[in-house]
Amino acid sequence: MEKSHENEHPVKAFGWAARDTSGVLSPFNFSRRVTGEKDVQLKVMYCGICHTDLHQIKNEWGNSKYPIVPGHEIVGVVTEVGNKVEKFKVGDKIGVGYLVESCRECENCANDLENYCPGQILTANGTYSNGATTYGGYSDLMVVDEHFVVRWPENLPMEAAPLLCAGITTYSPLKYFGLDKPGMHIGVVGLGGLGHMAVKFAKAFKTKVTVISTSLSKKDEAIERLGADSFLVSRDPDQMQAAAGSLDGIIDTVSAVHPVLPLINLLKTNGKLVMVGAPEKPLELPVFPLLSGRKLVAGSAIGGVKEIQEMVNFAAEHDITPDVEIVPMDYANTALERLVKSDVKYRFVLDIGNTLNKS
Amino acid sequence: MEKSHENEHPVKAFGWAARDTSGVLSPFNFSRRVTGEKDVQLKVMYCGICHTDLHQIKNEWGNSKYPIVPGHEIVGVVTEVGNKVEKFKVGDKIGVGYLVESCRECENCANDLENYCPGQILTANGTYSNGATTYGGYSDLMVVDEHFVVRWPENLPMEAAPLLCAGITTYSPLKYFGLDKPGMHIGVVGLGGLGHMAVKFAKAFKTKVTVISTSLSKKDEAIERLGADSFLVSRDPDQMQAAAGSLDGIIDTVSAVHPVLPLINLLKTNGKLVMVGAPEKPLELPVFPLLSGRKLVAGSAIGGVKEIQEMVNFAAEHDITPDVEIVPMDYANTALERLVKSDVKYRFVLDIGNTLNKS
Repeated sequence: MEKSHENEHPVKAFGWAARDTSGVLSPFNFSRRVTGEKDVQLKVMYCGICHTDLHQIKNEWGNSKYPIVPGHEIVGVVTEVGNKVEKFKVGDKIGVGYLVESCRECENCANDLENYCPGQILTANGTYSNGATTYGGYSDLMVVDEHFVVRWPENLPMEAAPLLCAGITTYSPLKYFGLDKPGMHIGVVGLGGLGHMAVKFAKAFKTKVTVISTSLSKKDEAIERLGADSFLVSRDPDQMQAAAGSLDGIIDTVSAVHPVLPLINLLKTNGKLVMVGAPEKPLELPVFPLLSGRKLVAGSAIGGVKEIQEMVNFAAEHDITPDVEIVPMDYANTALERLVKSDVKYRFVLDIGNTLNKS
Repeated sequence: MEKSHENEHPVKAFGWAARDTSGVLSPFNFSRRVTGEKDVQLKVMYCGICHTDLHQIKNEWGNSKYPIVPGHEIVGVVTEVGNKVEKFKVGDKIGVGYLVESCRECENCANDLENYCPGQILTANGTYSNGATTYGGYSDLMVVDEHFVVRWPENLPMEAAPLLCAGITTYSPLKYFGLDKPGMHIGVVGLGGLGHMAVKFAKAFKTKVTVISTSLSKKDEAIERLGADSFLVSRDPDQMQAAAGSLDGIIDTVSAVHPVLPLINLLKTNGKLVMVGAPEKPLELPVFPLLSGRKLVAGSAIGGVKEIQEMVNFAAEHDITPDVEIVPMDYANTALERLVKSDVKYRFVLDIGNTLNKS
């Protein structure tokens, strides 16, 4: 038999894949490895649609290897465990995020920062050390080393899967940069999948939250729907000037190139501007405004597995869930088109468990 | 009598001033206020020559008001105290740095961060709230509120005056950004007045120090004279690549526009690049390299009065002094010309006490 995606590994799997840069997904028969001694096999129930999925399926980052099964905000149920698995048993609800492997030997891995390990392996469009391709959560089943699996709290809805990327990407910098102290004043730039989670976590940390956006159009939803305390239009110099020096920190979720000086000016002395979006081109950084207030501009990317577990536990305790639009598998291409236009509040989640049908 | 610099205030003073953008200093008769109840009057003994003096006398920052008496690295002896002065008495050795006043009411002032107070008043080329001009340390005497005066440790040479600007400017960020932990690996970019102090403080904190410079020419002095542990030529891509991911933090003293990506690449995960020089134009900041290692770029400017006192005490305890070339007052113009060419190791200090003669 000729080697194919279907017989590359012993376990039959089925999902939807992108075959080329057109970005169109279609049904895809492939295969998964046998459950290893430290692996859990899971039935995928829900998978969020992240902007990264779009970048991958259209090869916008130049590193796509087709076919690609996207998806890294995955919640499912354990169907099989290897004989050395310690944390999970069949039937457990679990989550899998952006990574399925790392080197386990470097200083970052030793510090539970697999997300900064140079040897990290992405859940989708990645390559295992043996050369096999990783296929993500737009599929019926997965096999993942238990180290990269988190326990899904019983009272957290399984469709809150976007916590696993959008959630941790905003939770982690709020914690690490000390922007989680009650009474602080936090800005959130951009109100999409990441931004709306930043607002929810910052409010749960009992900070005052200001949403900063290019136009007034999102003011009502920011304040009434998400509970932000105030709203700033970044293109209104008077509003921005009036708010100068008022923020302890800003989570900037915008991945387009944009001016940072107006944001730096919003910060208090010792204020922190943390980028979680990745503009492709360099930003212009004026240095004097940093010096004159001991301010900083930083970056942060997702979070380590231990912190993801902490974050989903926190979300469960504080009833924090992403605002999602649950759609069937065959709506994926439409969802991706709408995502390009930011036409979603605020995250699509594929109902894989009920709607991914092989026929 | 017509109002003049000489009779504007009651106390006769004498120094050297710049009269225009030519940048040439010449003898200048002016006046100082009477010692107020919280003031100390001091005889200036030594005053460092800082790059800021050059910017001010040539109006390179566009805010110069002539005549300018420069100088903000000042060590002297108390000659008179107001009746409410608590910390000092006649004969005490004292230091005065970059600031002579601040608002005393804002959050920064409350937190001993007068250096970030929007109402701060510079020691030279500044304006008091009553409209009077501040004249700096290239002069025979000064009158300063005791809040902005530090006690000069007995065993610290008075010619170590550059601690008051070059010293605190590098000490403060090493402390604030947690780059003072034994065993850390610290980079210092640029080996001038600021850079050489950064090396000395970082070594005193028992960190490993790497000096980063555009050419090999400063390698011997960095290692043999200043005690740095290693040296990197920033224009040598192989060296820079070999050192990638090795530094916990970098103090960047370069005030010319320069690329920061090669420096960001030198940082470990969670590494910190702290700018203490102020390039006039924005730098290019690539965001992805920040995200992929949770790195930050920050600014820091001098330090508050309380920290300046802590720093000079630390310097006295650890025998840390700037490398200085002591010159007479009438050498000032030559010194400034040499400073433009970086022809000094590493700071000129004017011997005001012995060489400032009115005749």
